[in-house]
Amino acid sequence: MKAKARAHTNIALIKYWGKRDEALFLPTNNSLSMTLDQFYTETMVEFDSKLKSDQFILDGMEMDQRETEKVSLFMDKVRRYTGESRYALIDSVNHVPTAAGFASSASGYAALAAAAMKATGVNFSEKELSKMARQGSGSASRSIYGGFVEWQKGELADGSDCYAVPVLEQGAWDLRVLSVEVTHEVKKVLSREGMKRTVETSPFFAGWLEAVAADLVEAKAAIAERDFTRLGETLERNALRMHATTLGANPPFMYWQSSTVQVMEAVQVLRESGVEAYFTIDAGPNVKVVCQPKDEERIFAELMKLAVVQQIYRCQVGPGVNYLEI
Amino acid sequence: MKAKARAHTNIALIKYWGKRDEALFLPTNNSLSMTLDQFYTETMVEFDSKLKSDQFILDGMEMDQRETEKVSLFMDKVRRYTGESRYALIDSVNHVPTAAGFASSASGYAALAAAAMKATGVNFSEKELSKMARQGSGSASRSIYGGFVEWQKGELADGSDCYAVPVLEQGAWDLRVLSVEVTHEVKKVLSREGMKRTVETSPFFAGWLEAVAADLVEAKAAIAERDFTRLGETLERNALRMHATTLGANPPFMYWQSSTVQVMEAVQVLRESGVEAYFTIDAGPNVKVVCQPKDEERIFAELMKLAVVQQIYRCQVGPGVNYLEI
Repeated sequence: MKAKARAHTNIALIKYWGKRDEALFLPTNNSLSMTLDQFYTETMVEFDSKLKSDQFILDGMEMDQRETEKVSLFMDKVRRYTGESRYALIDSVNHVPTAAGFASSASGYAALAAAAMKATGVNFSEKELSKMARQGSGSASRSIYGGFVEWQKGELADGSDCYAVPVLEQGAWDLRVLSVEVTHEVKKVLSREGMKRTVETSPFFAGWLEAVAADLVEAKAAIAERDFTRLGETLERNALRMHATTLGANPPFMYWQSSTVQVMEAVQVLRESGVEAYFTIDAGPNVKVVCQPKDEERIFAELMKLAVVQQIYRCQVGPGVNYLEI
Repeated sequence: MKAKARAHTNIALIKYWGKRDEALFLPTNNSLSMTLDQFYTETMVEFDSKLKSDQFILDGMEMDQRETEKVSLFMDKVRRYTGESRYALIDSVNHVPTAAGFASSASGYAALAAAAMKATGVNFSEKELSKMARQGSGSASRSIYGGFVEWQKGELADGSDCYAVPVLEQGAWDLRVLSVEVTHEVKKVLSREGMKRTVETSPFFAGWLEAVAADLVEAKAAIAERDFTRLGETLERNALRMHATTLGANPPFMYWQSSTVQVMEAVQVLRESGVEAYFTIDAGPNVKVVCQPKDEERIFAELMKLAVVQQIYRCQVGPGVNYLEI
């Protein structure tokens, strides 16, 4: 009664920004991501009738009560759904450096959901995995699949139609992401809090919902046609729109730092010189630059020249969840 | 049949952003400004039946046909309104350094409207001056008055109810503005073009109109109570909201540079250390910092430490239009 799964992190090209239900992690809009090969989490789950509570080991260290309780709350959801009644040992290793600017919650909850569901001995569908992962962290719903993935917001109040679906499989389009680290600083407004404040106070939230629906249509058409320019313009525009909503909030907040803007400026200069690079930014100061393989070296070299750049991580399109031998 | 007028530039605390009529300079929202003492334009207008066309001298130099035509088009509006039929000699001196980041069009058209109307020999009301100045440059409508000024958008299609009114006279509240120059670079998207693109393509424009109406109510209440914190928070929030609308436009654009964000960050650091400073930004990269007299030296000294800062201009609350002896 144990299983081990690996899941990769993902970068949203069309952003998830806003919840319609906080408890169930139901979003206000569809989002679209690219799964990344380089960063992943491996998690082993073993249900054991001898355990009196869940045990959580992360990167070889036993976690304290607070961390374990968070994971245990998620495991309760798995138990409710699967009928499993035992507690579990959860042993997880994160291959997502904090500095790379990717939340490990996406790969983390996707791997945990997959391993835990599998460890019950029943084979659940990817749709069921996606729904379960979503209840740990919204963006984890997308990390079940490789390649390009859409997370559908659904309409139902119970979230039963809210899960991710594959858009284009890994290997079908070779794009690259350079994750540009400009600071190690912890962000001041966590994404969960930022989303909430935006939904509640930003006069731009209604406009965001309208815009993101149109941006998604564009992005999917661009992916279907492998039209990089169209995809690039759309993903950059969508990221700017997401960040615009935070400027409208009350009190306003901004995830960018001046170093973030320096990278944005450098990307624009590259484009003006004929090199196709487009940026996207999540709820933090680091910048991700999306490009085609032919331009990767040039873009890497140019961005490395910036004094504000600490490090650049290179990523390719990654696979979905897979199970590992124990 | 000649007259000379001086008018000062102004800084919008609640921004003018969006036109409902391009030709008549009718805005989509009310705005609120502070007239500044330091920067002004002095203009002499003399109607002369011997002239075969308008003549325009700026800063002692005769202007070319293109510049003269722009001013002449405005003089046609003055002639239509006043019944004056002669051409004029216009002699104007600008005391608005380009680097200070203030458009000279506000003080320029306010001084020109005042001098030209006066030179007809008829005494027109300030309301009439404001409406006339507006037809040269929207923000010029506010420069007719000193102190704190509201420009009312009006409702009528002909613009007859679209003019500025005084909110609080000069001398009633001593606030300071530090105009922080970070670059001499010419902006890429002129404000006229930027407004138009925002109105036509930004999904945030409806939200902007809603927000600006609420921000104006807040700002006026803050001025009535001389509540600097309330005014400061409101003006900074309003500026961020204006700039957010440009991020949503298609194609998106941004007036900020990384150096702009550095100044914004420094203002925030000052506030966290207990010094009350609030920023506002117009359609360009430079930053204006609003503060109380007691904090001016400290803020000036701190901002001067930034390597990106070229120069800082200090301003106080300025007077409305006045007439000069010739």
